[in-house]
Amino acid sequence: MYGIAILGFGVVGSGVAEVLDKNADRITLGAARELRLKYIVDIKDVPDPYKNLLTRDFGAVLDDPDVRVVAETIGGAGIAYEYTRRALEAGKSVVTSNKELVALHGCELLRLARERGVNYLFEASVGGGIPILRPITQCLAANKIYEIYGILNGTTNYILTAMIKQGASFEDALRLAQASGYAEADPSSDIDGIDACRKICILADLSFGRHIDPDWLKTVGIRAVTAADTAYADRGGYKIKLLGRAVANGDGRVSAYVAPHLVPAENLLAGVEGVMNAIVVRGNAIGDVMFYGAGAGKLPTASAVVADIIDAAKHEHSRKLISWDTGEPSMLRDSAELVSRWYARVAADEAKILTAFPDAEVLGAVSGETAFVTGETSKAGIDAALANFGVLSLFRVIG
Amino acid sequence: MYGIAILGFGVVGSGVAEVLDKNADRITLGAARELRLKYIVDIKDVPDPYKNLLTRDFGAVLDDPDVRVVAETIGGAGIAYEYTRRALEAGKSVVTSNKELVALHGCELLRLARERGVNYLFEASVGGGIPILRPITQCLAANKIYEIYGILNGTTNYILTAMIKQGASFEDALRLAQASGYAEADPSSDIDGIDACRKICILADLSFGRHIDPDWLKTVGIRAVTAADTAYADRGGYKIKLLGRAVANGDGRVSAYVAPHLVPAENLLAGVEGVMNAIVVRGNAIGDVMFYGAGAGKLPTASAVVADIIDAAKHEHSRKLISWDTGEPSMLRDSAELVSRWYARVAADEAKILTAFPDAEVLGAVSGETAFVTGETSKAGIDAALANFGVLSLFRVIG
Repeated sequence: MYGIAILGFGVVGSGVAEVLDKNADRITLGAARELRLKYIVDIKDVPDPYKNLLTRDFGAVLDDPDVRVVAETIGGAGIAYEYTRRALEAGKSVVTSNKELVALHGCELLRLARERGVNYLFEASVGGGIPILRPITQCLAANKIYEIYGILNGTTNYILTAMIKQGASFEDALRLAQASGYAEADPSSDIDGIDACRKICILADLSFGRHIDPDWLKTVGIRAVTAADTAYADRGGYKIKLLGRAVANGDGRVSAYVAPHLVPAENLLAGVEGVMNAIVVRGNAIGDVMFYGAGAGKLPTASAVVADIIDAAKHEHSRKLISWDTGEPSMLRDSAELVSRWYARVAADEAKILTAFPDAEVLGAVSGETAFVTGETSKAGIDAALANFGVLSLFRVIG
Repeated sequence: MYGIAILGFGVVGSGVAEVLDKNADRITLGAARELRLKYIVDIKDVPDPYKNLLTRDFGAVLDDPDVRVVAETIGGAGIAYEYTRRALEAGKSVVTSNKELVALHGCELLRLARERGVNYLFEASVGGGIPILRPITQCLAANKIYEIYGILNGTTNYILTAMIKQGASFEDALRLAQASGYAEADPSSDIDGIDACRKICILADLSFGRHIDPDWLKTVGIRAVTAADTAYADRGGYKIKLLGRAVANGDGRVSAYVAPHLVPAENLLAGVEGVMNAIVVRGNAIGDVMFYGAGAGKLPTASAVVADIIDAAKHEHSRKLISWDTGEPSMLRDSAELVSRWYARVAADEAKILTAFPDAEVLGAVSGETAFVTGETSKAGIDAALANFGVLSLFRVIG
């Protein structure tokens, strides 16, 4: 028997149980063996028909030789870290949707899995159900990846979409997202870019082969985006999106950051609305590829966790070749050095702006305020050029 | 040594050699062993530095135990079929970009590979370099897929994009595509939908598990799309795209066809321009996911072929679980039964149309001609409703 234990029966954990049950025939076919959910580990009660699987005794689960894979859907880097280590040490494969844990300790946990001859898989940790990590490591294995960026957080994209479509203020759009169940009561992890930061770090780890720590990145969320900005941008054919982005420099260093960007209509990311996610990967043979889908949600995320369970079952006696080396902050190049066009909203009349920026693309102006897009320059370049102006908003424009 | 032979040194074959060389370090890392291009089999001459690898003696290549994987980039279902069979029978894995061969004989060649304990892999046969077949079979393995559709042919999308953007006629846009190297002198395989038909058959084979033969499908290309149609569609916020589409019916049957469709602006496929491809997969847990990228071209296609070489090398002693059963025409449900909205351009005044179709969305009208979108009905339904009108164009609208 190939037994499964689910750790944490919240939204994703209960979705894993549901998908295992609902699509059992297809899953058996894919894994070429029958998989059986044997334990649910949680401190809270669980509904029927799962009551008889519930236990609080994780040690006993680890001692059961039937249990071959553990689905960690607890979240966070506390008890989830401890339980993941213990499961790998006991020779069980672990699959997870836990981006915080993977971003912080993925390098170490993959090494531990390698030592024990088992797998640590985390497709669901980035992009929810969107296939992205396996395509990067397998399908694009013949490419040198030089850039990866995308809309990695559904909550902020929902808020920005409401601001764009309804002209709502950030505060009103946030309240709407909270009322609709798309934002937490404490929304900081989403709207301050922390969630997107963890995900771009995992994407960069896999794309560039070195650990990049979330703490090393400059991370800006969407609190500073105003309804005026989304409206000016829209008038010029741009949408404002929160992007995580990682770029390989020729010298082996990586620039990575999270920030709001203006995205031109020709870029498919501009059309990604609501809670959907999309990720662009640029390789030296493939060119640009994009992956799009639901970046969160119970069943989409669970479907990726279960795909990893199937993969672990198929490769029980081999190991997936996923890993990356340790890293250090000096590998990062300050993202401020990256050159791009910039969007600025400035307390100045259009005439003054056009004198200082003769090639500016003016998106709109009212008395004493002008919104425009500049030519390409670094952060230092744009800061110098704007030094004598009152800057109200300043965002990069993606290519 | 893990030796490689390339069969056919045309655009894709020479691209495979180039990618193997250019990204050798990353490829060695991915395969966890060194791969070496040992033979190129072709009847024509090849350029330096490949001259010393050239041979016409395929038998000798098969007798060389160093050769573990054969990249078949000949194309067609003639000699490519014979050589693929011989390679598999000799215990070599085969990777290919040959959609015609996979669509016609994939079921049989996969069975042969299984019997010989080797792999037959063909990621490059659909969507060029876009990761699509592996995501369907692995990442979405926990889903029941109920529909798959997409822009599967770059040449026709280039022509339609030129018609939409420049108001060109079909004939002028085709000439432009030929002059730009995006269409063949004999463009029939692209513009009559034959290429897209092969690809949707391979996608349906993998998604639904049964062989679906290209000959069984109703396949309509883009010859009947006029500049008037693309302009009317554009006015209503739609783009005309050639789609391959396969839908699972509840009863185990599949509806599959190729035809031009109107795609509304909210659907990301509407923004897919030029030679790019994009494929939407709908699963019962994941919802909609989309994969986008270059559907053809030397290096993108070669990068997918080389990814399969890496995979074959990694799984030399195991077999990828890809297969499908034989099929028969009775598995197909006539696509005419599928219900959808329809776009019609009809030789009648707007008033007459609104009398016959009170809920029509009129896209435009000139004296004696009206273009409009109907409510949902089958092909029989729309044919009956239009029986007394002179129908100039009739296309489905995708949801």
